[in-house]
Amino acid sequence: MEFSAEQIADLVNGIVIGDPTVIVSYISKIEDGTPGTLTFLGGEKYQNYLKDTKASIVLISENFIPKDTSELPTMIVVKDAYASFNQLLRYYNDLRTHKTGIEDPVFISKSAILGQDLYVGAFSYIGNNVKINDHTKIFPQAYIGDNVTIGENCYIGPGAKIYNDCTIGNRCVIHAGTVVGGDGFGFEPLAEGYQKVPQLGNVIIEDDVEVGSNCTIDRATIGSTIIRKGVKLDNLIQVAHNVEIGEHTVVAAQTGIAGSTKIGNWVMIGGQAGIAGHLKIGDRVIIQGQSGVMADVENHKRLFGYPAIDYLKYQKSFIYFKDLPKLVSRLKKIEEKLDK
Amino acid sequence: MEFSAEQIADLVNGIVIGDPTVIVSYISKIEDGTPGTLTFLGGEKYQNYLKDTKASIVLISENFIPKDTSELPTMIVVKDAYASFNQLLRYYNDLRTHKTGIEDPVFISKSAILGQDLYVGAFSYIGNNVKINDHTKIFPQAYIGDNVTIGENCYIGPGAKIYNDCTIGNRCVIHAGTVVGGDGFGFEPLAEGYQKVPQLGNVIIEDDVEVGSNCTIDRATIGSTIIRKGVKLDNLIQVAHNVEIGEHTVVAAQTGIAGSTKIGNWVMIGGQAGIAGHLKIGDRVIIQGQSGVMADVENHKRLFGYPAIDYLKYQKSFIYFKDLPKLVSRLKKIEEKLDK
Amino acid sequence: MEFSAEQIADLVNGIVIGDPTVIVSYISKIEDGTPGTLTFLGGEKYQNYLKDTKASIVLISENFIPKDTSELPTMIVVKDAYASFNQLLRYYNDLRTHKTGIEDPVFISKSAILGQDLYVGAFSYIGNNVKINDHTKIFPQAYIGDNVTIGENCYIGPGAKIYNDCTIGNRCVIHAGTVVGGDGFGFEPLAEGYQKVPQLGNVIIEDDVEVGSNCTIDRATIGSTIIRKGVKLDNLIQVAHNVEIGEHTVVAAQTGIAGSTKIGNWVMIGGQAGIAGHLKIGDRVIIQGQSGVMADVENHKRLFGYPAIDYLKYQKSFIYFKDLPKLVSRLKKIEEKLDK
Repeated sequence: MEFSAEQIADLVNGIVIGDPTVIVSYISKIEDGTPGTLTFLGGEKYQNYLKDTKASIVLISENFIPKDTSELPTMIVVKDAYASFNQLLRYYNDLRTHKTGIEDPVFISKSAILGQDLYVGAFSYIGNNVKINDHTKIFPQAYIGDNVTIGENCYIGPGAKIYNDCTIGNRCVIHAGTVVGGDGFGFEPLAEGYQKVPQLGNVIIEDDVEVGSNCTIDRATIGSTIIRKGVKLDNLIQVAHNVEIGEHTVVAAQTGIAGSTKIGNWVMIGGQAGIAGHLKIGDRVIIQGQSGVMADVENHKRLFGYPAIDYLKYQKSFIYFKDLPKLVSRLKKIEEKLDK
Repeated sequence: MEFSAEQIADLVNGIVIGDPTVIVSYISKIEDGTPGTLTFLGGEKYQNYLKDTKASIVLISENFIPKDTSELPTMIVVKDAYASFNQLLRYYNDLRTHKTGIEDPVFISKSAILGQDLYVGAFSYIGNNVKINDHTKIFPQAYIGDNVTIGENCYIGPGAKIYNDCTIGNRCVIHAGTVVGGDGFGFEPLAEGYQKVPQLGNVIIEDDVEVGSNCTIDRATIGSTIIRKGVKLDNLIQVAHNVEIGEHTVVAAQTGIAGSTKIGNWVMIGGQAGIAGHLKIGDRVIIQGQSGVMADVENHKRLFGYPAIDYLKYQKSFIYFKDLPKLVSRLKKIEEKLDK
Repeated sequence: MEFSAEQIADLVNGIVIGDPTVIVSYISKIEDGTPGTLTFLGGEKYQNYLKDTKASIVLISENFIPKDTSELPTMIVVKDAYASFNQLLRYYNDLRTHKTGIEDPVFISKSAILGQDLYVGAFSYIGNNVKINDHTKIFPQAYIGDNVTIGENCYIGPGAKIYNDCTIGNRCVIHAGTVVGGDGFGFEPLAEGYQKVPQLGNVIIEDDVEVGSNCTIDRATIGSTIIRKGVKLDNLIQVAHNVEIGEHTVVAAQTGIAGSTKIGNWVMIGGQAGIAGHLKIGDRVIIQGQSGVMADVENHKRLFGYPAIDYLKYQKSFIYFKDLPKLVSRLKKIEEKLDK
């Protein structure tokens, strides 16, 4: 896909300084710019790159325009270059990944209700009483179990699996291989072995949620596992049965949240963290990567460590942990002195 | 699906106190009961909820029947309310997820041998010489490689992948996206790079095993990776080549077990634990979540920490770890005293 | 498949001592040998097994031939028994997993360019402008997005997903369920919630790379996430956007590498390790399992711990960590002495 400076200026409500007919077909960072690419000036510290970049077009915020523009590449002046750049990227991404229509073969139950302007990729499976709303894209080999509802403008990646009875809101993204609604891990120990506790609840994913690839979000035993609106989950994340993740919480890859734990709003959780079951994590908590959280956490706390404690406290203790051999020899010296 | 109190009493061999015609269509916890739901009285501490619950039917153990039942919802009296409730849930779950027949299109090799009363979902693949026994359900997009044998009454979830030559026992559940029999991670370092050591063994999964979603259980280099009967694995678990997991061992999500390690019977392993290769873990061992086990473990031990040591020992040491800054200032004070 | 001692000797350029017509159909370890299997003598310490093994054929290095061979099984004498054994295993594995042709149904875009001697399994999806080179095997239910290029002699496992615009070199193995090119985890925080930063780059996998099952390798925001030639990744590994992994680096299962981190050549990373974002890890570094790397690492360093520090330093400190209760009581005794 090719775009002229003039077309781009139209899209972002900008003004061209330089050649409006220059063409770009890809994007670059300003320091790695190559001819035929669009870039942006990200802030003051990048200003030196402006005269050296080989990018053909630079998006620039209005308060960064240099006095002398004669030797510079074509610029498009906007209010906020970073915001306009991201807007263009989203536009480009939408164009690039746009798919529509129903490929062949697919399996669609007669009782399924499909909205307008859908994409349903080949080999995807849509069960009984499924409802899929307008402009949603179901990529190839996805599985949508019986009674599932999916909102508008969603993206369900290739091979994603949504088990029966789950619901997904509007503008959600579920990447490839993620499993929504698998059975929670519930077994009753008997003398002769473990007996399965049936997992009869579902998963509710609210609006504007993004879930990465190969995650597992288990259905509730009874009731619902709930992912509130605006939550963003990275890849390979485990969300156990009856967990609730509050609005606008972000979770990095490979983190696991055990059963029935409730996580607040605007929480940030690093990668590979583990949160034990039946806990309450407050709002705007920060949990560092690999931490092991084993107790409730109040709002605004920052945690670190295994087991996780206050962030600064763990860091201080770890400094002395590294020094333990020295501390022990100081202790020994004292003992020797006292023995004498 | 709707059930009357009378129908339910029949299923669990119970006696109705109240209206035998009252209808329920879902389940609830006694404290969250809503009209049209069935619940159960879980024990003495829940007895207060009995008169307040809005559930339409309450399963109740015979020794908990109140004297005055005039103001109470319809009750069904059984020996053990919890056991009967779970029995009903399993019955309901079986009804709800029951599928049968072979959907279209599927790929089934002519040399495959299929039992009675199977479900084979659309887009599933059944290779050469595969044998699938009666009443087993293969969900859509599952892959069953050449020479695989699957027992009776199994559930193979959507998109699960069973590589060639593996065997799965009776009454096993393999959830969506799990890969059984991928190559073990074996490479020989040469000057010019790593050379693959072919992985020619298989995976044997015995009876009554449940494996969650998106797990990876690698085939043995030679011989078999073995999951003994009654084992329950949660989601996103890694089982490396030539591992053996003993009977009735349960493993929580995201745990990894490295190559050739043998784990005993009735072991409990928490989430995100890591167990190094070539170890022997005894029977009834408990390994806390996120522990890193780097040595053999005797029967009945409980481990914690990274590296994992005795559970109580780690906890005690961690108490002082948190206090290290104070301990160091005590040490300093002593040194100052002695210097004077 | 059956092979005679003579056939095997031909394949490995060896000399038969014993019966050249004896037949084997599988392999065994020398200590577990059964009739009808081929094994090898791995080194001096296994020599005692030679006369006891029930294996029908033993590969033996020329400097290990016993004087009296009368009571021994048929032997095939080669230069290096282990190397020849592995060569045979690769040969056997190739025979056993060999598939060719295009099964039905598949979805292949008219604009895709397919090489010679391919296998394309049923229900696999090949998008627009895809190029797949000779002798590559695409297993059932794999997804190859638009504009993807795959080299020669590759193996793409069942249900693997390669998103649009990614490229894969020659002789690569991508196991089942792995997702290459999912969106990187990039969001901009706004007052009303997180806004997605479009992920427009791709993933480049060079020659001779092997990736295990259910891994996730995210596409770059801009530019490429790069897996250099000869890299071997185990299962369930997370590689974030814009990461670069150097040549011949091996990574064990469940490790995660955060965004934009560059890892050197010939690095060895244990299982469940976590490496923070924007770091530079040198060449031939060794990172122990479960370590949490939070800073740049120089060439040849060996790291351990959470947070990760020098391997030996962590081990020494951990010895005293285990002793902390004792150290504290020594401290207390000193204080009491001084108080008197």
